[in-house]
Amino acid sequence: MSERSDIDALIELMARLPGLGPRSARRAVLHMIRKRGLILNPLSELMATVAATARECLNCGNIGTSDICAICADERRSNGILCVVEDVADLWAMERAGVFKGRYHVLGGTLSALDNIGPEELGLPRLRDRVPSEEITEVILALNATIDGQTTAHYIADLLEGQVTLTSLAQGVPIGGELDYLDDGTITAALNARKAI
Amino acid sequence: MSERSDIDALIELMARLPGLGPRSARRAVLHMIRKRGLILNPLSELMATVAATARECLNCGNIGTSDICAICADERRSNGILCVVEDVADLWAMERAGVFKGRYHVLGGTLSALDNIGPEELGLPRLRDRVPSEEITEVILALNATIDGQTTAHYIADLLEGQVTLTSLAQGVPIGGELDYLDDGTITAALNARKAI
Ligand SMILES: [Zn+2]
Ligand SMILES: [Zn+2]
Repeated sequence: MSERSDIDALIELMARLPGLGPRSARRAVLHMIRKRGLILNPLSELMATVAATARECLNCGNIGTSDICAICADERRSNGILCVVEDVADLWAMERAGVFKGRYHVLGGTLSALDNIGPEELGLPRLRDRVPSEEITEVILALNATIDGQTTAHYIADLLEGQVTLTSLAQGVPIGGELDYLDDGTITAALNARKAI
Repeated sequence: MSERSDIDALIELMARLPGLGPRSARRAVLHMIRKRGLILNPLSELMATVAATARECLNCGNIGTSDICAICADERRSNGILCVVEDVADLWAMERAGVFKGRYHVLGGTLSALDNIGPEELGLPRLRDRVPSEEITEVILALNATIDGQTTAHYIADLLEGQVTLTSLAQGVPIGGELDYLDDGTITAALNARKAI
């Protein structure tokens, strides 16, 4: 049915989003079409706005709408503590918990020989530079408890040894668990019970 | 973080789609932002196009881009056989199987005293009118094997008794199963083995 080509193209594109497949994309598109005033039109407009304005913070890797994100621009968050996370979703999870008052460094992944991801790709030289320039005294490694996450944590520990106090989220992070799956209370507990590496 | 308001609004709207929740919406939005040229911009444009062009077929209830859908407009599909489905997603599933050559009637739901859905809401008077006007000799009831689906099938059987041969999808539809979950081969088998009610 050639007349359905735009609808089919929309379904195909939606099916490429994480967490959606062809079937859920079809359901989502039918739902959007039925609620076009409430969902489809606003979604289209918001996506255009976000596509035009969203950018990665040049300092920390967070996603916001300016070259320097609101957290990096906020002088009150320059408290000498930096929290290193793998992904922007992890940073957002920390912010939802609302307990951390310092700044972040988003790696955008973990070291992985298999995927050719080295220190440069993760912005680790930039992390090292931030320590003196932002007078960082403590770096919290809030990385996932995966093999690659722990390998990356060890690399950063070596990189920053003697320059800062290194801590890691402790209590409450389940073995093999991922930060973005945790509830705010668990993140708060893990942050409050952080221990020296 | 006020600068994130558009991103937050986008996440909130995405989270309202069926099959997505807050967490998968956040993941999807981060993914879209990273792939804005490949996903976010095309999605925004396709959504605007679909919002402007998608409409329900006045004859059968299918969703397309004209008042009369491609199936209803195709004279070759006027073969005297009508397939009644609950949802447009079910019609699409039948079309993917590619074995049915007649036309459809989309109910948009099932009879439900609880939800105040009666024959009018499902377009059943229109279905009855289509039988003589489109010279229908067989009506296939491809409804889901749920209580409400079967109640609706019985209502339609009474409504059309003596006017057409009534059949239902038979082999392969699992008890309590929904049409849109089935693979094409199962749908084909069920259609080929349809039996008189
Ligand atoms: Zn930043
Ligand atoms: Zn139609």
